[in-house]
Amino acid sequence: MSIESFQTSGTSPSRCRIGLLGFGTVGSALALRLASIDSPRELQLTHILDRRADAKRAARPEFAHVRWTADIDELLASDVDIVVEAIGGVDPAADWTRDALRAGKSVVTANKQVVARDGLRLLALASRQGRQLRFEAAVGGAMPVVRAIGDGLAGDRITRIDAILNGTTNAVLSTMESTGCALASALADARARGFAEADPSADLDGTDARAKLAILCALAFGVQVRPEQIAARSAADLSAKDIAEARIRRSVIRQIAHADFDASRSRLTAWVAPTLVDADSVFARTVGPRNAAIVTGAHSGETVIAGTGAGGGATAVAIIADLIAIARDRAAIVPPPRLSKPRVIAGFEISDSRLQTSDLNLAEVV
Amino acid sequence: MSIESFQTSGTSPSRCRIGLLGFGTVGSALALRLASIDSPRELQLTHILDRRADAKRAARPEFAHVRWTADIDELLASDVDIVVEAIGGVDPAADWTRDALRAGKSVVTANKQVVARDGLRLLALASRQGRQLRFEAAVGGAMPVVRAIGDGLAGDRITRIDAILNGTTNAVLSTMESTGCALASALADARARGFAEADPSADLDGTDARAKLAILCALAFGVQVRPEQIAARSAADLSAKDIAEARIRRSVIRQIAHADFDASRSRLTAWVAPTLVDADSVFARTVGPRNAAIVTGAHSGETVIAGTGAGGGATAVAIIADLIAIARDRAAIVPPPRLSKPRVIAGFEISDSRLQTSDLNLAEVV
Repeated sequence: MSIESFQTSGTSPSRCRIGLLGFGTVGSALALRLASIDSPRELQLTHILDRRADAKRAARPEFAHVRWTADIDELLASDVDIVVEAIGGVDPAADWTRDALRAGKSVVTANKQVVARDGLRLLALASRQGRQLRFEAAVGGAMPVVRAIGDGLAGDRITRIDAILNGTTNAVLSTMESTGCALASALADARARGFAEADPSADLDGTDARAKLAILCALAFGVQVRPEQIAARSAADLSAKDIAEARIRRSVIRQIAHADFDASRSRLTAWVAPTLVDADSVFARTVGPRNAAIVTGAHSGETVIAGTGAGGGATAVAIIADLIAIARDRAAIVPPPRLSKPRVIAGFEISDSRLQTSDLNLAEVV
Repeated sequence: MSIESFQTSGTSPSRCRIGLLGFGTVGSALALRLASIDSPRELQLTHILDRRADAKRAARPEFAHVRWTADIDELLASDVDIVVEAIGGVDPAADWTRDALRAGKSVVTANKQVVARDGLRLLALASRQGRQLRFEAAVGGAMPVVRAIGDGLAGDRITRIDAILNGTTNAVLSTMESTGCALASALADARARGFAEADPSADLDGTDARAKLAILCALAFGVQVRPEQIAARSAADLSAKDIAEARIRRSVIRQIAHADFDASRSRLTAWVAPTLVDADSVFARTVGPRNAAIVTGAHSGETVIAGTGAGGGATAVAIIADLIAIARDRAAIVPPPRLSKPRVIAGFEISDSRLQTSDLNLAEVV
């Protein structure tokens, strides 16, 4: 089992005490994992914070031994070692993440909006506090793209990222493609399967993917870009006819997040948009709520990573990976990030011409 | 640039001094990277050991400022912080790795045979010494599969691994497939492109992939298996007719390394063999010297990773990633691994029946 393996079988004397913020889809999946036989022995869930703590505690007797609260101050004053932020949204999640670090806790977050907006400050705060802020779950669900870019390909100079980062939109587009249905009914199908929120606009219009791409730009290129500086076109208006026309061109439509960086000119190109991709490409073959990324390095060429991009179980895998990393070495030294602001941030540059690489067959933005 | 990014922009006061063992394909590629503008600022190549140190130093004036030696004792007595082992083979690489750790150095190795055979003892030694042993480059070239399994998916219970781990064999098989030629001429082509050694038997017969698979079994399942306990069939006897017959079945032949582990019965199944894979699968689409792995987790489903599996430049990317990780936190606590021996180690179980998963279409072993 990986949880007892090579790099995770700590002999630490005491278990890491975990305080969970938010008992929704992700939070409850995490709590179940931490209560199961698959739970790493070094982790112990001791606190759960939820607005509806009383009602949820009553409904979930299996977590009766955990301290439930609706009061963030109580949780932060407790003896938890690591706070897991699974609330989502910016407010109050950003403040609570900062407060947790100030209270001497490490933080594991699944919150792409908070990491994209405040990651730099929060990581610097964590470093000053001698604590860690980890965020594998903020991008790509169980697909370990944060580590692949931040650690595994840290030995390269990354020049380009192309990725499917929003599972909801991908599930909708691949259903439209396989059934010929309209976007509205594909969306209803995604909702029924638990892949879409009641309001999917942040998924379809690219808000979600822009935040994730901003995080990957920081990791890959060392540049600071705000999500709203990333150009975006919405997928909300795509019709069955668009999908059919793509098929005639032996292509499919995917919401692609693209970024490339020219360090010599300090020029970042970044956009999120529905894009024609070759029917035979990695991206076309990424269906349902899966995510995929192709990372191009100056020395390593193209590295592909793909995996389950959405859902409580997949996100819990990424959170637990981060919890294990902290539990393994609580005194780890994590230097604060040093990011530069690109001189130029450009948007759609490929919109009118086919763009080809050896593995990527991105065509035009739709 | 990733080398100045989020997690790598250390503010460490002194640079890490690197001693390189072996100035062959990998060693010279690494030395060139460390002398280039792409080199992370925190790393400094100070020593190179090579049997032919005098001749190589004379031929490479660009490394005149580096201390060249043919004497391992001189290098180990020096002030290098990290030893990079790029010699290959078991002898003397295994002894020198142990000696380097005993001398208080951390070690980054590309040597799958040493890690597969002695990794457990060497990691325990490193831990006792307060030093690190890292080996991303031992499996998959630039494809960060060691981190993906050991760190990123550490939050899951991994049940199965299927992978293309030998770039040489893959280049040979995909050339046979695209040209219809015999194995001998595909091999000559691979040699001409620098993808094959003079003696490719360790690649074709599975010796190389078995060592790599043994390492992945330890990381993924926490089990100890010796490379020679892994069943193998050679690809050396494949003919153009085998490839043509596979095509009739809409399949191609790949050297697949497979492992699955049933923890409840402590039963490991592991083998390396030329295998029929669906023409549309991830593995069939892995051509030339590329590597690919599909890792199946109980909670995350299938995670795919693919990348450049061979060559000096790709291997140097993985080594530099490990060097950065050590330089970032030289006092990191890495607990020793705790591995169990499986009660049963089984070989080919799928040989006579088609095996299907959602993304995997492994058919029979050829």
